[in-house]
Amino acid sequence: MLIVMKADATDSQVEAVLRVVEHLGFKGHPMPGAMRTAIGITGNQGAIDPSHFENLAGVAEAIRVSKPYKLISLDLRPEKTIVRVGDATIGGDELAIIAGPCAIESRAQAFAIAEAVRRSGARFFRGGAYKPRTSPYAFQGLGEEGLRILADVREAYGLKIVTEALDEVGVDLVERYGDMIQIGARNMQNFSLLKRAGKARLPILLKRGLSATLDEWLLAAEYVMAEGNYQVVLCERGIRTFAQHTRNTLDLSAIPAVRRISHLPVIVDPSHGTGRNFMVTPLARAGVAVGADGLIVEVHDQPEHALSDGAQALTLEQYDELVNEVRSIHEVIAPAAVS
Amino acid sequence: MLIVMKADATDSQVEAVLRVVEHLGFKGHPMPGAMRTAIGITGNQGAIDPSHFENLAGVAEAIRVSKPYKLISLDLRPEKTIVRVGDATIGGDELAIIAGPCAIESRAQAFAIAEAVRRSGARFFRGGAYKPRTSPYAFQGLGEEGLRILADVREAYGLKIVTEALDEVGVDLVERYGDMIQIGARNMQNFSLLKRAGKARLPILLKRGLSATLDEWLLAAEYVMAEGNYQVVLCERGIRTFAQHTRNTLDLSAIPAVRRISHLPVIVDPSHGTGRNFMVTPLARAGVAVGADGLIVEVHDQPEHALSDGAQALTLEQYDELVNEVRSIHEVIAPAAVS
Amino acid sequence: MLIVMKADATDSQVEAVLRVVEHLGFKGHPMPGAMRTAIGITGNQGAIDPSHFENLAGVAEAIRVSKPYKLISLDLRPEKTIVRVGDATIGGDELAIIAGPCAIESRAQAFAIAEAVRRSGARFFRGGAYKPRTSPYAFQGLGEEGLRILADVREAYGLKIVTEALDEVGVDLVERYGDMIQIGARNMQNFSLLKRAGKARLPILLKRGLSATLDEWLLAAEYVMAEGNYQVVLCERGIRTFAQHTRNTLDLSAIPAVRRISHLPVIVDPSHGTGRNFMVTPLARAGVAVGADGLIVEVHDQPEHALSDGAQALTLEQYDELVNEVRSIHEVIAPAAVS
Amino acid sequence: MLIVMKADATDSQVEAVLRVVEHLGFKGHPMPGAMRTAIGITGNQGAIDPSHFENLAGVAEAIRVSKPYKLISLDLRPEKTIVRVGDATIGGDELAIIAGPCAIESRAQAFAIAEAVRRSGARFFRGGAYKPRTSPYAFQGLGEEGLRILADVREAYGLKIVTEALDEVGVDLVERYGDMIQIGARNMQNFSLLKRAGKARLPILLKRGLSATLDEWLLAAEYVMAEGNYQVVLCERGIRTFAQHTRNTLDLSAIPAVRRISHLPVIVDPSHGTGRNFMVTPLARAGVAVGADGLIVEVHDQPEHALSDGAQALTLEQYDELVNEVRSIHEVIAPAAVS
Repeated sequence: MLIVMKADATDSQVEAVLRVVEHLGFKGHPMPGAMRTAIGITGNQGAIDPSHFENLAGVAEAIRVSKPYKLISLDLRPEKTIVRVGDATIGGDELAIIAGPCAIESRAQAFAIAEAVRRSGARFFRGGAYKPRTSPYAFQGLGEEGLRILADVREAYGLKIVTEALDEVGVDLVERYGDMIQIGARNMQNFSLLKRAGKARLPILLKRGLSATLDEWLLAAEYVMAEGNYQVVLCERGIRTFAQHTRNTLDLSAIPAVRRISHLPVIVDPSHGTGRNFMVTPLARAGVAVGADGLIVEVHDQPEHALSDGAQALTLEQYDELVNEVRSIHEVIAPAAVS
Repeated sequence: MLIVMKADATDSQVEAVLRVVEHLGFKGHPMPGAMRTAIGITGNQGAIDPSHFENLAGVAEAIRVSKPYKLISLDLRPEKTIVRVGDATIGGDELAIIAGPCAIESRAQAFAIAEAVRRSGARFFRGGAYKPRTSPYAFQGLGEEGLRILADVREAYGLKIVTEALDEVGVDLVERYGDMIQIGARNMQNFSLLKRAGKARLPILLKRGLSATLDEWLLAAEYVMAEGNYQVVLCERGIRTFAQHTRNTLDLSAIPAVRRISHLPVIVDPSHGTGRNFMVTPLARAGVAVGADGLIVEVHDQPEHALSDGAQALTLEQYDELVNEVRSIHEVIAPAAVS
Repeated sequence: MLIVMKADATDSQVEAVLRVVEHLGFKGHPMPGAMRTAIGITGNQGAIDPSHFENLAGVAEAIRVSKPYKLISLDLRPEKTIVRVGDATIGGDELAIIAGPCAIESRAQAFAIAEAVRRSGARFFRGGAYKPRTSPYAFQGLGEEGLRILADVREAYGLKIVTEALDEVGVDLVERYGDMIQIGARNMQNFSLLKRAGKARLPILLKRGLSATLDEWLLAAEYVMAEGNYQVVLCERGIRTFAQHTRNTLDLSAIPAVRRISHLPVIVDPSHGTGRNFMVTPLARAGVAVGADGLIVEVHDQPEHALSDGAQALTLEQYDELVNEVRSIHEVIAPAAVS
Repeated sequence: MLIVMKADATDSQVEAVLRVVEHLGFKGHPMPGAMRTAIGITGNQGAIDPSHFENLAGVAEAIRVSKPYKLISLDLRPEKTIVRVGDATIGGDELAIIAGPCAIESRAQAFAIAEAVRRSGARFFRGGAYKPRTSPYAFQGLGEEGLRILADVREAYGLKIVTEALDEVGVDLVERYGDMIQIGARNMQNFSLLKRAGKARLPILLKRGLSATLDEWLLAAEYVMAEGNYQVVLCERGIRTFAQHTRNTLDLSAIPAVRRISHLPVIVDPSHGTGRNFMVTPLARAGVAVGADGLIVEVHDQPEHALSDGAQALTLEQYDELVNEVRSIHEVIAPAAVS
């Protein structure tokens, strides 16, 4: 923490601040400048709450310096984490592709799409059994029946099942039927759910909240890890901005930003990140080019009849093209992305 | 829904869209224009998913017209709702003031602050027993011990207790100890929690999410009401924008915007809405002037020692001044705010 | 400036940074901490460009501490500036009200509205002769003919004329016909225009840009003042956010934020700040309650026939009510707003 | 335009709206629905101002349907525009690379960088002679001396010169010394400058404003084209959002969004789009992968001594790597990007 005193702060105000610093068990380093004095603080183990200082007499500003996270940090673990989902991985050399419908609607639909996903060489199948919907009157998913269909897809096609848990009971259920637990954007700061996920025996796919800063997102991962589950994959899925031509604004700068701080793998969701069919493939290419460890993509055999999010689902043909294109890019940039 | 065809859409593409409209059980109204044809849809009961149309050949855009909410709407209930919390109310003629510390830290702290709150004439006491904190390493609240202290505050001072539930178990606990259940901004789209709140026997204070549109916020209230709990108070508490001089950007335009659509009362939180002590009173005045039904404000007897959010808490003296100022404004604008 | 070294930075990297600091003529203060070393920099007169340090080996972050402004600052001039426009003032005890149509459309329209503005006791008349329009095909204003009408309004009603200049030639013209030069939100960082305004003989009304931070806005005022024109009034007119229920999000927290840093007066524009007729009066009340020095409001005698921005213009009756309401609030809060 | 009536609107209110529609010379199409009546409007040539209707009795909402642009539109010109800058092009098969320093600082600096740019095979050299700086006290560029150096770079290396004009006089000067006129983000809605650019004899590089919607950006291009200059290249350079890990949020979804509406070429600026050296190359790869027609990149021979924006400039070595990587991606995706 750095405390900046006002230009007209008196010596006794500076001393009063130094006494508070010492009282908290830290060490203060006054730096008198031409215009104003600043006081550096050392000796703390983590972030200090600036509110200890902001309202003291003569203080202009208290600026955080220490970062509040530990377990997610490259400082703690310099080599990249490879998350294992059975015999598949996310974060290694291979580009991870997670594909499937927004919501599981029927056995026939799930199997038709899973067939195409397996054929593409992807290792992961996505599909929602419990859907977080903005309106209480919208289709909310098939529930446990949807999970049973997903388990059958795994059986039939050998795909790993990635599906969302909306609450603590949902985590229990996904642990029973699935392979990886998705925490959705709207739940990124549902701390009860994060703590439960931290005790789960499955890896977690943690989507970035619509208005989450990088620190908040990483601290949500820290919540999971602090409970003992170190198998966390981050997922950039678009943030909320003023832009109206896209449902969300996919923030691809988050990928290099995460890389600089954390050892956790990070993937991109171009489907929710854009919400519009014609943008999904270009942004999927961009996500791989920027260096993501994988993609999660919505595919539907009949997008025009989808019960949710049909506007962004790719047809099976479009999905095949996407996989071809992103694989070519991944081959080209693989060495660059690593560095 | 209005479907806008591309300029070069053919007659048969228009007809194909009309067939899909009919197939869904609605009625299509083609309107040929100079440049392009538009097709109005009627006969639907609620919002139609635009994805049924967006990817059909020749379609440029599908624009929603119907609103997806019902119970919150002035269409359904033209007179304003007055939420009753025991013998106190929110939404009536009186300005509701909810005040107290961010977190309950000790019995002594709670009682010192409650004393001042009661003296000010406010009817509601706030205080967190379970705190949603960005970092897993920050103070998370006293838990049930905090709730017991709150119940004692009620006993001692006759104040109604407003406190946050973070999950379904939390709702059970607040039902036992409190008078009004707060759903926090980060949980505004925690749909499992909203459904549980909809079955609670206490009124709900529903904070707006950091990046929630007006429709999303109103639909969160609709989730609660759809389960049978019609006692919902909305709370504007600031949204996330690019601005850095304030922790959040308090969006006071939300007050008249809610009034235009909904019969639910709406209050303002200038403490979280700004995050900075010196902004709280000016924005509290503005919140009352814009026509809010009340305020929720953080007060602390020793803000510099607060375990959370000290930077925004008012001292007891500042709180007294705030109450005086907002009461004067409320008297002046009362007839205006009603209209 | 504070330079935070990486956790694994070596002593020689710290020394290399210190050498660069000295080379730039500043003094470095190394502060070794438990986890990492930080280096404070003093001896600089203004803000240091962080890019001198950000890419040096071992550097994690370079954090700005000094603020880049001088003339706008309370450090330089602790008492509030009162801007004089002839015998009227902005920033003093009286609430300044600037009212009139978005664009001057005809002599009859301008006079009808000016009549009502004078009757209300307001001292300033607004009206655009040159309109910045998003589309090249929209009405662009009457040009110099509009300015002549404004000059006649001044003659007839004794109102001070506030009107926008879009470019350097526009400043020449407003100097000839008007009393106060408005720099619009879209031109807030048109630095050529700001420099010309800094040489003008009239006071400047400087609107905040749609995505301007507080610092950028204050530095735009600094551009004007650095050329010698100290008569600057700031105007909050709404920022661009994700919210869709309002055209812009009026950021009233900017008023106390400006007060904390600057001696310049600041007013509020609830018309552009909301873009919707029914929100203007509530937000005008809020703007006065938060402590603004005045309001700028759009009024039209026939809003439904306005050539621009009719949706936000008040009728003459609505305007009269607004003036009454905000005057009552101003009386109530006057002593509070000063403190 | 679509006018949505309130649920309780009377027949006579509907008729009154229809009379206004006819009065304006358009045709109204009433569509009675289960809940409310909507009125479609046809017969208009461009966008209708919703304010004609929004405040009429019984009107709930007026929704724009027609788009306000013409010349930029694929409706007008279905094949993509290829902008010619001498014998170089932007928008054709070749990936356009524009590289150089943020600001021209000296002849030696410009020539050292130009040497590397030419060697890389890029055809365009960028460099600012007039710099728009947030602070009046920051380095503002060498002015005409900088333009003379740029002209010498063209002479010596055969590179096309792309440089910014801040005002109308600046356009005159760039016409004399350069090959392509850049309009910066802060000037995107400086309409006087846009009109002057529309009369220039050189192509225009039009950067997107920090908070510009897609429509506003395209309408800024429409301003230039409406004056007769059809040689416009759009440039996505990041928007302002709440995110703090990057200076701006590069909105790559803008590329497919522009493609869907306009025939104009569009390039990406990963330097300003991120503001941080380590993000530039990953985002440049992403920009090419998403389908942009080119890149504009800041390079410096000694970034740590740059007089502006050093934090984002690539070293010559980093720039060489970037060019290699993006060329490989361009080859892979070329056929895809076209479709």
